[in-house]
Amino acid sequence: MKIAITGKGGVGKTTLASTLAVILSKKYKVYAIDADPDMNLAGSLGIHKPITPISKMKDLIKERTGAEPGSSFGEVFKMNPTISDLPESLSTDYDPEGRLKILVMGTVDKGGDGCVCPASVMLKAILRNLIIKKDEIVILDMEAGIEHLGRRTAEAVDVMIIVAEPGLKSLETASRIKKLATDIGIQKVVAVINKVASPLEEKFVVEKLKEMDVDVLGSIPRDDMVVISDMEGLPLANYPDSAAFESIAQIAENILNHYPSN
Amino acid sequence: MKIAITGKGGVGKTTLASTLAVILSKKYKVYAIDADPDMNLAGSLGIHKPITPISKMKDLIKERTGAEPGSSFGEVFKMNPTISDLPESLSTDYDPEGRLKILVMGTVDKGGDGCVCPASVMLKAILRNLIIKKDEIVILDMEAGIEHLGRRTAEAVDVMIIVAEPGLKSLETASRIKKLATDIGIQKVVAVINKVASPLEEKFVVEKLKEMDVDVLGSIPRDDMVVISDMEGLPLANYPDSAAFESIAQIAENILNHYPSN
Repeated sequence: MKIAITGKGGVGKTTLASTLAVILSKKYKVYAIDADPDMNLAGSLGIHKPITPISKMKDLIKERTGAEPGSSFGEVFKMNPTISDLPESLSTDYDPEGRLKILVMGTVDKGGDGCVCPASVMLKAILRNLIIKKDEIVILDMEAGIEHLGRRTAEAVDVMIIVAEPGLKSLETASRIKKLATDIGIQKVVAVINKVASPLEEKFVVEKLKEMDVDVLGSIPRDDMVVISDMEGLPLANYPDSAAFESIAQIAENILNHYPSN
Repeated sequence: MKIAITGKGGVGKTTLASTLAVILSKKYKVYAIDADPDMNLAGSLGIHKPITPISKMKDLIKERTGAEPGSSFGEVFKMNPTISDLPESLSTDYDPEGRLKILVMGTVDKGGDGCVCPASVMLKAILRNLIIKKDEIVILDMEAGIEHLGRRTAEAVDVMIIVAEPGLKSLETASRIKKLATDIGIQKVVAVINKVASPLEEKFVVEKLKEMDVDVLGSIPRDDMVVISDMEGLPLANYPDSAAFESIAQIAENILNHYPSN
């Protein structure tokens, strides 16, 4: 199963993606991919060392396979279509058993170096050609906003989760994502509500999502432990008693019940 | 003076940009430009009707001037280099006197339509060729993260403000922005701290920013009125007694004192 986590900046995409990844890695082999050039998925899992991005992969594969220069990345990847064939140096293990592997798409190394369109093309090709095994889950932490939907980066995912919070700004983004995701043929678009401080706030967001015809997978309360773990640079999963973690564990259950891995 | 507001998604860029724009428009003619394809600057000012984006401007100018197809946008704009020459239909007035005008860069209209690189090129050309009068201020609300710094969209600004909040994620982004902004020659990069819940949190962020050699223009407390005004779809400026508004008014003073409009 391939899941993309989307939404307005700052709604909690990375917190949800990283915590879901840890929880699901108890039962599945999980590949968590940071598709945001302003990457912080690894940091959100407590890993603060650099990871070689997928955007450097073409050179690595060429080195190994001697693939013709000019052959498209998609073609090269079709020769090695399972994610476990990705060069080990492109991922970092979260746990000693390597059940949760972290990959990053690529970033802007130098001001003026250009956009991340080439890196997005490469990630799209990987996701399109990838054969996911029954016991494997890919979780994509997308860039903030909507540009990735113009680029179709995540078009090959099975489920797109929109994270929304109480407020019209994140709901306007949610509405745009729902529309653009439908444009590129993504069938299952659902929502998670984050930073809920009161039943009134939750009701406000649920009703707006209903108007967009978006089902809600679950809600996460506003929880200072999320701020505290971010200030410490530690995973929220280190605080399994926190209200936010418990809610995300419930959301993980809901995902597995609604969309059994096939 | 041209000011760009940057930072990780969700730190409060749009709230700061829109509120600064309202405050500064009491003394200056202000052009507030939404440079985020996931646009919400107008919404944050309580304006929920569509605005024709700058990315549609080329056609408009061609219609009016009969400029040769193929002539670059930069060339076309050099013929009309003051912002007041922009077609009226490309901006919306916030106030009856038109002291605060809102413009938008452009968005992704349809899933799969591509990136916003062309719209960014157009905005960059406008900002580079623009002659700002003594009594005019341009405030750019940038897209979340760092890709705009790869594209050099805001290279022509006088001051870049990074918004940071308590937490390592927004500070990692701040550090990347400082580095990339320096790469493209932006001299003045300063910070505003948002969502401060305690002196300890503020101290944490101030120290991290000091390590990056980034001066702090001011701090904004965590304030429920920001959430409430977002849920209502109303400007924070409608609540001038709120702690967040008062802090931003102080930041506006600091900007004018440090960087007098020339």
